[in-house]
Amino acid sequence: MRKSVPLLGAFLLAGAAAALEIAESAASRRKGPADANLIDDLVAANRILSDQGVVDGFGHVSVRHETDPMRFLLARSMAPGLVTADDILEFDLDGNALESRGRALYVERFIHSEIYKVYPDVRAVVHSHSPSIIPFGITNVPLRPIYHMSSFLGAGVPIFEIREAGGPATDMLIRNPGLGAAVARKLGKSAVMLMRGHGNVVVGQSIQQVVFRAIYTEINAKLQAEALRLGQGEVAFLNAEEAANATATNNAVLSRAWELWKQRTLRPRAEHSSVP
Amino acid sequence: MRKSVPLLGAFLLAGAAAALEIAESAASRRKGPADANLIDDLVAANRILSDQGVVDGFGHVSVRHETDPMRFLLARSMAPGLVTADDILEFDLDGNALESRGRALYVERFIHSEIYKVYPDVRAVVHSHSPSIIPFGITNVPLRPIYHMSSFLGAGVPIFEIREAGGPATDMLIRNPGLGAAVARKLGKSAVMLMRGHGNVVVGQSIQQVVFRAIYTEINAKLQAEALRLGQGEVAFLNAEEAANATATNNAVLSRAWELWKQRTLRPRAEHSSVP
Amino acid sequence: MRKSVPLLGAFLLAGAAAALEIAESAASRRKGPADANLIDDLVAANRILSDQGVVDGFGHVSVRHETDPMRFLLARSMAPGLVTADDILEFDLDGNALESRGRALYVERFIHSEIYKVYPDVRAVVHSHSPSIIPFGITNVPLRPIYHMSSFLGAGVPIFEIREAGGPATDMLIRNPGLGAAVARKLGKSAVMLMRGHGNVVVGQSIQQVVFRAIYTEINAKLQAEALRLGQGEVAFLNAEEAANATATNNAVLSRAWELWKQRTLRPRAEHSSVP
Amino acid sequence: MRKSVPLLGAFLLAGAAAALEIAESAASRRKGPADANLIDDLVAANRILSDQGVVDGFGHVSVRHETDPMRFLLARSMAPGLVTADDILEFDLDGNALESRGRALYVERFIHSEIYKVYPDVRAVVHSHSPSIIPFGITNVPLRPIYHMSSFLGAGVPIFEIREAGGPATDMLIRNPGLGAAVARKLGKSAVMLMRGHGNVVVGQSIQQVVFRAIYTEINAKLQAEALRLGQGEVAFLNAEEAANATATNNAVLSRAWELWKQRTLRPRAEHSSVP
Repeated sequence: MRKSVPLLGAFLLAGAAAALEIAESAASRRKGPADANLIDDLVAANRILSDQGVVDGFGHVSVRHETDPMRFLLARSMAPGLVTADDILEFDLDGNALESRGRALYVERFIHSEIYKVYPDVRAVVHSHSPSIIPFGITNVPLRPIYHMSSFLGAGVPIFEIREAGGPATDMLIRNPGLGAAVARKLGKSAVMLMRGHGNVVVGQSIQQVVFRAIYTEINAKLQAEALRLGQGEVAFLNAEEAANATATNNAVLSRAWELWKQRTLRPRAEHSSVP
Repeated sequence: MRKSVPLLGAFLLAGAAAALEIAESAASRRKGPADANLIDDLVAANRILSDQGVVDGFGHVSVRHETDPMRFLLARSMAPGLVTADDILEFDLDGNALESRGRALYVERFIHSEIYKVYPDVRAVVHSHSPSIIPFGITNVPLRPIYHMSSFLGAGVPIFEIREAGGPATDMLIRNPGLGAAVARKLGKSAVMLMRGHGNVVVGQSIQQVVFRAIYTEINAKLQAEALRLGQGEVAFLNAEEAANATATNNAVLSRAWELWKQRTLRPRAEHSSVP
Repeated sequence: MRKSVPLLGAFLLAGAAAALEIAESAASRRKGPADANLIDDLVAANRILSDQGVVDGFGHVSVRHETDPMRFLLARSMAPGLVTADDILEFDLDGNALESRGRALYVERFIHSEIYKVYPDVRAVVHSHSPSIIPFGITNVPLRPIYHMSSFLGAGVPIFEIREAGGPATDMLIRNPGLGAAVARKLGKSAVMLMRGHGNVVVGQSIQQVVFRAIYTEINAKLQAEALRLGQGEVAFLNAEEAANATATNNAVLSRAWELWKQRTLRPRAEHSSVP
Repeated sequence: MRKSVPLLGAFLLAGAAAALEIAESAASRRKGPADANLIDDLVAANRILSDQGVVDGFGHVSVRHETDPMRFLLARSMAPGLVTADDILEFDLDGNALESRGRALYVERFIHSEIYKVYPDVRAVVHSHSPSIIPFGITNVPLRPIYHMSSFLGAGVPIFEIREAGGPATDMLIRNPGLGAAVARKLGKSAVMLMRGHGNVVVGQSIQQVVFRAIYTEINAKLQAEALRLGQGEVAFLNAEEAANATATNNAVLSRAWELWKQRTLRPRAEHSSVP
């Protein structure tokens, strides 16, 4: 997906260089508030992820500002299923709210800011406690693509162990830029990263793509666990070329699912259980 | 189910002959647009399959034209749960839209066209990523009928491996007539065929029957996996005669379930999660 | 539960005697149509079992006539979730509709008639394809009470194998009085009986009780399967006294659940998936 | 969580002392009926636990009176999902209703009264048959925190075996103060206790906290069982410090989930299945 990801060894240096590039190229483009359509899509993304069971009272989704790559949009600290346009705030790449209007902020906004800082091609980020992926984050069983819909998992799914960067006694949260930077490093060129005892991070090149990926990551996890039991460990996964080709194909039809999910958020709705 | 299915060895020749027969018998019957009731049923089928979790943003259902067997009806490229009568297009048996009105077409319409071409008795086709069947398509565990509702599985459930016809680097999709023909060949006389790393194909002699089969295939897969674990592999399946007899019985009461599912699509509805 | 159940050996004779007793005691009580409240409760039972996922398009629930024990009430052949008071018909204990008004009848009404014929204390019967019990009917794992809510399973859960009474080539249905009688014999004094490759039968002394039992049978099956996996076969079940005592206690609070379930059937509702 | 919990050995004595302290400190604060906001929160808690699948027709939630610690509030005997403010009654710490107005009372109110009597810091109690925890109560597999949301499980989850205090032939219910006292003793300093063949007890320092804990206990149980299968018994749990730190963090954001759950109870709603 992302072409210019540095090797892990040279990561910090290259990351800094990438950030520099963004800063330079963005200087001339920075022009005022985010587009209303982008905000509407971000609100829809919050509602969709809640409707589809990827987030419950917790979790968040952000998008990079469409003309200023040094800013991103994220809701104030609240349940995604209740977010409206008025709840969307702007942040810089250090995770500072540009104008918080006294609103509480997500403690873990540094997941977003540090990923945007390092990966210029990432334009949207989801952090969730998506239920079916939790078991994969606390076992040694790799999450892999079982069908074409989740082919983006073919780029690999690393697991972030907070004890490596934060020691053995954290509260599990990515509550400062340093932990955010460790998250960004571990993510590498993958679309999805699991966080041990916590949840996952999903990145994409648009809101529609990151929502699609977050939902099909959840589905893949549920069905892969089932397949491993059914096949007693013997499961045929997509190979690397199938995964890459299917991802290119899916990217062209993201709107088909997006339109359905968006329509569903507008209808009278059922109670949504947090219980998976 | 289908009486005159050729042996696999003589398949291509017999298939061509069957297609010829259709062409001849149909010449005098071809008379204009599809019946409004048939279109209404196809719209209902789209909605029902979405409501029941067989399809999500993806998947499709078609029906053969009721007076012209050389044509079939299928929605334009969109989520089944949003399909209306205006979205239904007509196709010929090469997968060409007769009048596309500029609409985008499903890339995989050749699943439908090639099956209709070869099997005169097939009058409706569903292609889905029905979640519970995915694990059966990627393991070596055969899908078999665990109870009378899914007795149509007694005809066998082959697995389509796209690498055989398409090589090791496809995008998994049935995106041309050649792959569609390979799908049709592998289907044989079965009602259901799995596609490795992709989904399934279900065929029937009416819209009501194919919807019934698609739904109970999903249920059978879910419960069979559960039974295999519970019984540690020891499970009593329907025998061949029980399966054949139950299928004949079920065919007489398809409308009982259809009426329920159809009523449900008309009521105020809950958010439908794509997550199984 | 039922006090005067004959030993299996003397079953047919005792059953006939019991039926005779009913006939005698009932002669003076037989007085016209069923009470409107009883019909309302039977309609509610149909809706509740559909809402709670015990029945889908198929399955049925009946109640013995409140003043004439030689009659019972059952809907015409249709999906339980759509039943209204006008769909309720009366049947005699041979499964004949007293006044069918041209309506189609459930093929399997003999499950009900033969049970009512043999067991005077049974006043309500459910037949369903309750999803989670299907695996127990096709494996050798006994369904047993894992908690107090399903304590009525403590009386034992026999499995009906239709091949014993119907041979190896049935369509799995209880389509005549002879098969119905075999079902009634196998049921014995249990509250629940599984039918291999088909579903279950649940009996009770009232509509409220049989609905309670049908729902908690489904829940027990789901959670027992889970417990057996979690405990690798080592599970603590209720002992016989706990089961008997808890059943007596539950019988006194059936209305607490009934009122909730009934209220739910009256609210605007979500689409109900048949897929478990 | 609770700072001043006595060692198990000195438990009864210390418990009595604690109760005495409450009586003294409360004497001056006792002032009439409970606050309307507290009652509203308790009604919301009933609805939320029903919406989220923690309780069905059975189970209950209580809160200690905000100015008189010798009293607590609990609904009359009814399904939690139907509770309104008018159904809330006041009880003393022996489980007597102060003014029952002829209403039926929960048989198991002694779970609440005896816990409030012994643990001054407990301000809210849930008793439920939360489905996913049932298997953990009947096997020897400890329930442990798999992620930060359920970190409160880090204090340990004892299992209450009613046969120890009630003998081998109870009806499983906590139907008198003696059994309630045994429940309270076994709970110790934990936030959650399982009851073999029955359900669980969850305690907290506020309604919001106890609802949060009851819901995430259910989720943890479901996902832990899944993780144990996936990892074939090898699962990384939160360590003691992570659990304690995450609990402190979560306590500060309880309202984020509460607001979502509360909003959901006010919307037009879907049928809620009791079947998990």
